Amino acid sequence: MQHYPSQLLERAVDEFSKLPGIGSKTAMRLVLHLLRQDVRAVETFGQSIIRLRQEVKFCRQCHNISDTDLCDICANPRRDHATICVVENIQDVMAIENTQQYRGTYHVLGGVISPMDGIGPSDLQIASLVERVHQGDVREVILALSPTMEGDATNFYLYRKLADTDVKITVIARGVAQNDELQYTDEVTLGRSIVNRTPFNINQ
Amino acid sequence: MQHYPSQLLERAVDEFSKLPGIGSKTAMRLVLHLLRQDVRAVETFGQSIIRLRQEVKFCRQCHNISDTDLCDICANPRRDHATICVVENIQDVMAIENTQQYRGTYHVLGGVISPMDGIGPSDLQIASLVERVHQGDVREVILALSPTMEGDATNFYLYRKLADTDVKITVIARGVAQNDELQYTDEVTLGRSIVNRTPFNINQ
Repeated sequence: MQHYPSQLLERAVDEFSKLPGIGSKTAMRLVLHLLRQDVRAVETFGQSIIRLRQEVKFCRQCHNISDTDLCDICANPRRDHATICVVENIQDVMAIENTQQYRGTYHVLGGVISPMDGIGPSDLQIASLVERVHQGDVREVILALSPTMEGDATNFYLYRKLADTDVKITVIARGVAQNDELQYTDEVTLGRSIVNRTPFNINQ
Repeated sequence: MQHYPSQLLERAVDEFSKLPGIGSKTAMRLVLHLLRQDVRAVETFGQSIIRLRQEVKFCRQCHNISDTDLCDICANPRRDHATICVVENIQDVMAIENTQQYRGTYHVLGGVISPMDGIGPSDLQIASLVERVHQGDVREVILALSPTMEGDATNFYLYRKLADTDVKITVIARGVAQNDELQYTDEVTLGRSIVNRTPFNINQ
């Protein structure tokens, strides 16, 4: 048992240690760093987290994190609202946005179906996706979930759920990643990259 | 440039990224973890840090972190107040306390003399140490600074500063660490461990 010279210190270190991947030594280092900062800077730090948690909203349409009821992407008339890209979480939205290759909208499921972790369809934003597709003028649903067993199972579940609509359902391409070495690429990926080969494009 | 779907999110991630060793990806992961926690838990987290910074005190005698004007160790009549162990920082106090081998008091310098980093004697709690030694019934000052060039230089500086007193000045033992392999121990340490050998003690 570590002996702390101050209860305030112990409490702050304890709180930091609760964060994933932060052990008690790292927590101590972070807290002592904050102790050396200006009082105002530390207040800003603490308040930024408290405010985020208190005031953050989730878009009522796509469930992405947002400062407003309808997120910037859903509210943007210049985005293609007939295309919905289904992702697991908000990091995936940010990652796809960063590619600057997509002009449609999103739907954040909040995870994938994973019976092992006790996550069923009703724990995810699936009903609202089905409703969105049934209601609106949606032409295409792009499934952009993790290329894992759970992701595949969720893809299949969504495909079945949307089978009665005439919306086009696509899945993001799987294949070798940029700069990957073929000899170290797993068989499934390499095999699929040959089966799903695309016409050579000089601009790609 | 990362595109954030929420300013509140961006601000919180920015604040976390300022911490040492926390990159923007880790910051995002930590913030999203906090977002999934209870509002109350996040308030407790933020407040624990703000309160620590606002209310923390440093012991007026040894400069260790403390919740009171005089720290628990300095205020404890059962500690040996005639012995002062000089350390760089409060982690060193905690480390020595954890050994349960020391019953004296401490003096936290706040670093070591390091001209390269612009740290001179006046940036450290040296004057107050000299004052403590001159004033009180101090018998021994134990120098427990880093075994580095800067630590050694600081030891030498303190030795000179206290030379006009009849206090005994000692340095913590340097030698091979528990479970170290001799063949991988550096020459200086191994050489010193032979020169400063101690009588064999069956209880050690």
